[in-house]
Amino acid sequence: MRRVYLDHASATPVREEVIEAMLPYFDRHFGNPSTVYDMGSQIKQVMEEQRAKVAKLISAKSQEIIFTSSGAEANNLAVKGVAFARQKKGKHIIISAIEHHSVLNSARFFERMDFEVTFLPVDEYGLVDPGRLSRAIRSDTILVSIMHANNEIGTIQPISELSGICRDKGVLFHTDAVASAGNIPVDVNALNVDLLSLSGVSIGAPKGVGALYFKNNLRLMPLIHGGIQEMGRRGGTENVPGIVGLGKASELTIAELTDKIDYLQELRNLLVAGIQKRIESVKLTGHPYRRLPGHASFCIEAIEGEAKAYVQTPALLVLQKPLKLRRFW
Amino acid sequence: MRRVYLDHASATPVREEVIEAMLPYFDRHFGNPSTVYDMGSQIKQVMEEQRAKVAKLISAKSQEIIFTSSGAEANNLAVKGVAFARQKKGKHIIISAIEHHSVLNSARFFERMDFEVTFLPVDEYGLVDPGRLSRAIRSDTILVSIMHANNEIGTIQPISELSGICRDKGVLFHTDAVASAGNIPVDVNALNVDLLSLSGVSIGAPKGVGALYFKNNLRLMPLIHGGIQEMGRRGGTENVPGIVGLGKASELTIAELTDKIDYLQELRNLLVAGIQKRIESVKLTGHPYRRLPGHASFCIEAIEGEAKAYVQTPALLVLQKPLKLRRFW
Repeated sequence: MRRVYLDHASATPVREEVIEAMLPYFDRHFGNPSTVYDMGSQIKQVMEEQRAKVAKLISAKSQEIIFTSSGAEANNLAVKGVAFARQKKGKHIIISAIEHHSVLNSARFFERMDFEVTFLPVDEYGLVDPGRLSRAIRSDTILVSIMHANNEIGTIQPISELSGICRDKGVLFHTDAVASAGNIPVDVNALNVDLLSLSGVSIGAPKGVGALYFKNNLRLMPLIHGGIQEMGRRGGTENVPGIVGLGKASELTIAELTDKIDYLQELRNLLVAGIQKRIESVKLTGHPYRRLPGHASFCIEAIEGEAKAYVQTPALLVLQKPLKLRRFW
Repeated sequence: MRRVYLDHASATPVREEVIEAMLPYFDRHFGNPSTVYDMGSQIKQVMEEQRAKVAKLISAKSQEIIFTSSGAEANNLAVKGVAFARQKKGKHIIISAIEHHSVLNSARFFERMDFEVTFLPVDEYGLVDPGRLSRAIRSDTILVSIMHANNEIGTIQPISELSGICRDKGVLFHTDAVASAGNIPVDVNALNVDLLSLSGVSIGAPKGVGALYFKNNLRLMPLIHGGIQEMGRRGGTENVPGIVGLGKASELTIAELTDKIDYLQELRNLLVAGIQKRIESVKLTGHPYRRLPGHASFCIEAIEGEAKAYVQTPALLVLQKPLKLRRFW
């Protein structure tokens, strides 16, 4: 039986080039970047080079990137960091109803602390309505968090339109770009966001590393208090090998993104067409075209989403033309 | 010039065996442990094996270990997790004046939220006085956090005596064992603690992984909200390779601890004697004997602690007998 892995939205294998880049930082260059002697400052320098690479992936400035341990941590830091820092201005947060649990449960955490949270519904394609967002904003709204692309259905939100509404009303805007960064172009200026989360897991970097973009020295209460690491916004010894991995993966992704999108879209379209042709009662979820290139998700009648269904099917895909297989992870 | 690295309290090189153990989990076994298909559940199984190894290092049960991204995160989770979960019982926290910044600044964070924090002073050797702790406990005290061994001066606190006082008064006790776990025996039962933090950086595991021991299903508000990872107490995709590294390093440490202590004590004593004999105006800080075996720190008159002092010295140590060099990292 040949197995095909189809869950890159959940985890990607770490790329060979990324492993190679990380290896020296386990045992040869192992210094603590916060130490004041040569060894530490050399590692610190390496870390700053990675910060520049990650910044480039999303067209940000180096000093706007905080390294975290995951996309979930970045999401927590964004929501809690802003809410704790700005609670005197107001205690109202708006998120979409389909946010990742790390955003959803961070917002809910504040409900216990006298915050109000508005959950914006989405339409049948998973889209947030800009008019509805506009009407939901109040004078005490301090943060709106709406994900860039949904990790389950692949729908891409009209972020710049949504963030523009917030900008006009002086409300900070965060987007969870864990599913999108590295899979479609992500430019913090075009998206016009104040905060953006991304993760290494999505782009062939190892588990255990993510990043938060925060615009122009924005004030944030640290999630992990500690020393002065990460511009005082995240304590704890930095995961240097992981950060080197994220830097390398970002660099590779920047070079390959256009090719990757074309390739994945072609494969995705074949898969969708093949499944829809051969399986009855199947429904493609998400938006027909505003969706991630390498993402397809289906509802199949009478089969639960998390069921371990071993379905015996004939070969699903009959390729119409020879397809050169490529690896982007 | 031969360079000797003397800052294992700040970072250790990752051990060869640890790197070997981690490698397959970057690109071969890369599944997300939260997924429901075979690949995910196999990784989940591997992760649980590591949890058992880390638990064994501190004589805990597997289900009492939460993996974190650092010792600092574990300290934050302990202090904030308890304070948020128990704030209705009281808003008073006690810590020692020499806690790591991750504990200190976590406690200070609650001062802004109507908590009171008592900072217990230490004596000239860095020890907390149990009598003073006892007198500081109030009816609204919910947590005491006192580190096991200090990372800067190496002093080991009389934890079981301190925690016993708290146990008698129904107050939870946390100890930061980042500097001690892996360097001296650490047994959560003998120490009689409710929470204990440790870190991979101290024991030849990679940066980016730590753990928190929490006794008997103790209620904790997550620091990183998200899915149901880590028994609902820590969201985010787990750093599987890092966790495998921490498991392997724990296993190696358990086997070698007695030898390691003897060896490091011998080296440490040689270093202390050599420095005190050959450098004037030098003072050994910390406790004369209640201290970490591989730890020595000095004050040298007229030299700042963080100064980059390139002092030309004759060979400091004239070994009295041949010493077999060993590596424990």
